[in-house]
Amino acid sequence: MLSREFQLINKYFRGALDDSSDVRCGIGDDAAIVAVPPGMELALGMDTLVEGIHFLSETSPEDIGYKSLAVNLSDMAAVGAEPRWISLSLTLPESDESWLQQFMTGFTGLARQYSLSLVGGDLTRGPLTITIQVHGWIPAGQAIYRHGARPHDLVYVSGTLGDAGLALELLQTRTEVENLQEILQRLNRPEPRVELGMALRGIASSSIDISDGLLSDLGHILTASHVAARINVHDLPVSSALKRYHDTIGFAIAAGDDYELCFTAPPGEKHTLEKLAQRFPLTCIGEIIEGEGIQWRQQDGTEYRPSRQAYSHF
Amino acid sequence: MLSREFQLINKYFRGALDDSSDVRCGIGDDAAIVAVPPGMELALGMDTLVEGIHFLSETSPEDIGYKSLAVNLSDMAAVGAEPRWISLSLTLPESDESWLQQFMTGFTGLARQYSLSLVGGDLTRGPLTITIQVHGWIPAGQAIYRHGARPHDLVYVSGTLGDAGLALELLQTRTEVENLQEILQRLNRPEPRVELGMALRGIASSSIDISDGLLSDLGHILTASHVAARINVHDLPVSSALKRYHDTIGFAIAAGDDYELCFTAPPGEKHTLEKLAQRFPLTCIGEIIEGEGIQWRQQDGTEYRPSRQAYSHF
Repeated sequence: MLSREFQLINKYFRGALDDSSDVRCGIGDDAAIVAVPPGMELALGMDTLVEGIHFLSETSPEDIGYKSLAVNLSDMAAVGAEPRWISLSLTLPESDESWLQQFMTGFTGLARQYSLSLVGGDLTRGPLTITIQVHGWIPAGQAIYRHGARPHDLVYVSGTLGDAGLALELLQTRTEVENLQEILQRLNRPEPRVELGMALRGIASSSIDISDGLLSDLGHILTASHVAARINVHDLPVSSALKRYHDTIGFAIAAGDDYELCFTAPPGEKHTLEKLAQRFPLTCIGEIIEGEGIQWRQQDGTEYRPSRQAYSHF
Repeated sequence: MLSREFQLINKYFRGALDDSSDVRCGIGDDAAIVAVPPGMELALGMDTLVEGIHFLSETSPEDIGYKSLAVNLSDMAAVGAEPRWISLSLTLPESDESWLQQFMTGFTGLARQYSLSLVGGDLTRGPLTITIQVHGWIPAGQAIYRHGARPHDLVYVSGTLGDAGLALELLQTRTEVENLQEILQRLNRPEPRVELGMALRGIASSSIDISDGLLSDLGHILTASHVAARINVHDLPVSSALKRYHDTIGFAIAAGDDYELCFTAPPGEKHTLEKLAQRFPLTCIGEIIEGEGIQWRQQDGTEYRPSRQAYSHF
């Protein structure tokens, strides 16, 4: 009597990940029932990925599965939350079990790294779209918001910037380069900075993940905090691969999909952050000032004017 | 510097509903931060609606907005939870503000009835798809699951069955009937049985919402509970509109989209349920027995054999 949809959910979603003890009832009922421990607040994030908009049609199902979850975990990282439970809604053009199996391999592989439970799922026919809701925990009052940046705070980013944008450009222009596979990893397998986000509780004054490019995402911090920033473009961390590319700064500033964190911290936290930089790749790229917008400063003191637009899904 | 996506989210999502005091941070950051009161567990449900699969292309944006939320609230009703927070992911073919405004009118109209907060949102370009995650509260240990039905329990349904299926059939066959608009309401504006679900805490032994038809959804209770049911088809509650239709029982049994509740309760709760029936339209349609599957019994004692298949989204 079970319909195809339920069969597939039972086969591929249910039991794909272990339910942790805080899951009272997982997949298989109308709603999951979970328990938030005392003293914890709940962080909620939802992101949708659409074929042709958020990933290329030729992306492997395994990479799509990984990345769909990674971009959602990145939202947890940005607020400093520990991800716990996931709901997954998959819309597939046809009931392709091989595709589904590969997707779930990428998805569960990343989910297991964080001991996540898959507590809800929906599977319907339609154009390829993936929506994930992540639920995380954070000690009450310790969430890191966008609106906390203050003048004199230092601006940091994790990792290197612009690599995912470079990968997309190389794919779209069908450019063959030596270490293409390595560069493509940055687009298809971004590493959500979950541990870093949690480590920044009580240290960072504001935080965001770089999904739409530094220009755009740092801009959100500045708007929310009613401040400006002076960024040293020669300090922007870029990979050796991007350095070989002609528009290095342009990509580092405006390309999206890197899922690194951009955060601010009071100058008094500088020493703490230097210590933290032994565990995580961190670079100080400038400081918060009064005013609005971003001043991009070059090594000779002159202003750099970005030519690329911020990324938009519309 | 804001991209189109953020502008639209700010304009149509942010502030569309009031944040309640349990919302520490709503739309506008990487994740929402909310607080679950002590003693409450969290109910999580996610459903996706795809144009052409879950609603007809000619459905009005306002009805789509209402129904997308209604089917998700219905999942909360099924487990007895009180809905609190919503995340909404909208994928739209084009940036059509008039469509978006009408959609949000239907969506927020229903959300306000339950004082819900919209705490997260995503808006991207792509084929028309709506995914909603609802978060609800339920006192710890009081959730109503599918697996609690026991032999001798009585089987109840709320409201009338088959009307949404009738509406769909009339639309698809372009049949003009007298009270078409009224019947269409049952398809486009289903009433989630949230108050009933909450009232059933401590009374119902199992519960499900009828999204795929009684045949299929009661089947889920039976499978999860390892029991069978004997259902009196002459007791199935049907509307006067459906009575005029030739395949009344077929629609009442197998048509989906009604979003009524089907639940079981021990015989000792019969009196309590009679009292509850003064507040909610409830009908006892049969009882749980040992075995598996559903016996459909006609008034003369003979068996009724359903001819229609259960609904499947794949």
